[in-house]
Amino acid sequence: MIGIFDSGIGGLTVVKSIMEQLPGYDITYFGDTARTPYGSKSSETVVGYALENTEFLLKKGAKIIVMACNTVSSVASDSVADNFNIPLFEVVTPATEKAVKSSGKLIIGIIGTRATVKSGIYEKKIKAIKPEAKVYSKACPLLVPLVEEGWLKKPETVMIIKKYLHPLKVRQIDTLILGCTHYPLLKDKIQRKIGKRVAVIDSSIAVAEKVKDFLETHTEVDNLLTKKGGFRLFVSDITEQFEKTARATLKRNIFLEHVKL
Amino acid sequence: MIGIFDSGIGGLTVVKSIMEQLPGYDITYFGDTARTPYGSKSSETVVGYALENTEFLLKKGAKIIVMACNTVSSVASDSVADNFNIPLFEVVTPATEKAVKSSGKLIIGIIGTRATVKSGIYEKKIKAIKPEAKVYSKACPLLVPLVEEGWLKKPETVMIIKKYLHPLKVRQIDTLILGCTHYPLLKDKIQRKIGKRVAVIDSSIAVAEKVKDFLETHTEVDNLLTKKGGFRLFVSDITEQFEKTARATLKRNIFLEHVKL
Repeated sequence: MIGIFDSGIGGLTVVKSIMEQLPGYDITYFGDTARTPYGSKSSETVVGYALENTEFLLKKGAKIIVMACNTVSSVASDSVADNFNIPLFEVVTPATEKAVKSSGKLIIGIIGTRATVKSGIYEKKIKAIKPEAKVYSKACPLLVPLVEEGWLKKPETVMIIKKYLHPLKVRQIDTLILGCTHYPLLKDKIQRKIGKRVAVIDSSIAVAEKVKDFLETHTEVDNLLTKKGGFRLFVSDITEQFEKTARATLKRNIFLEHVKL
Repeated sequence: MIGIFDSGIGGLTVVKSIMEQLPGYDITYFGDTARTPYGSKSSETVVGYALENTEFLLKKGAKIIVMACNTVSSVASDSVADNFNIPLFEVVTPATEKAVKSSGKLIIGIIGTRATVKSGIYEKKIKAIKPEAKVYSKACPLLVPLVEEGWLKKPETVMIIKKYLHPLKVRQIDTLILGCTHYPLLKDKIQRKIGKRVAVIDSSIAVAEKVKDFLETHTEVDNLLTKKGGFRLFVSDITEQFEKTARATLKRNIFLEHVKL
């Protein structure tokens, strides 16, 4: 099946997009809720967690792995690729490619966790395609806890979004990458505050499209994937909050299985 | 020496109080920054972490242990006491005793993490002393990330504090327990929003006073403690953010030592 992991709940936006793009494919998800969040931790620690999470999913029978977390994709995807010989997807490249295609002025903004922004990976990848692009990044570390709390529509959340987006707005970006899989849950508010003329690129949709394209051209891998509509959801810590948000995000009944890594 | 641990940075307010109450005592601190925060995780997970942290400090030579975290004190202190035979201090009891003494009307409010509030431990301990007391609790899960971000004076932080305190204010509490070691860093703002007539009890000061009292009456334990003014600071993940906030909280130079648990 398709193995997907994240530091916690954010990667469920990727699960949702993959379920829409590839209906019926069996999916196993691991959310590292006992060690969440990753975005404010060091690269060394995040790499260690990413290797453990990948190994867990492979043991469960994953044939391809999606790292549904921008922090992991930014700082740990090379290490995971070096250690495991399987088709591996990260969320940064698909979003980058989509942003470059969409941007007319090539003035692109990125929001993400502190670790993602510090890695500079979006800027590097965008400039590798279009060296003339102007790229502005802003770390938004409070958006993850606000999403995890379910404060999706509170005025305080809107104020904080406005404050974070201000430096990108004055740069007159025409494209904004949501460089964290939690942020699609705030997409409406972000679109309103950055302005309706700015194209907002959702990395969870971009990676799902990428996986679909890959499987269409790699039938030998596609044949390894079972398609019985199965969905297993493992977490390293079971909390009511996760259960509630997971149900709301996926709009289906879920059953959490506990695993200690 | 005195061993002190916390999920991350909050316990440094306890270190600061103990340094003030017991100047010169050697202290070793462990901040579990690779797995922080604890407050939104399950009791089972927090108990496991607390046992590992205690064991680490004992190996380093701690003769007494202070659990400088309300979440750990609320859900894991019995398990730690069952597993280790040493003088053990938690932050809930000292704050409770101080609050009951201070409260004229016996209408007491408590703010803390989701895990601390859910445990109901403050209410139980207050009612064990004064069954007639009225106790109102409010979980404030966003205050920890706001403190960790250093947003101590931002208007958004003040708005969120006001929103959290509102249900306690309408109950006309006369005493408010800061049931999380992060909150003393927001004490001014909290005092302003709850009103100057409400006594605000800081659990980090209360536990330091308790440790001092204990050592004065238990000289056989006090004699085991070295007093060379040493301070070692271990963390499970090294980040710039931690270093910056630690230096600001303790107002001294610090050197972080990394340890993987």
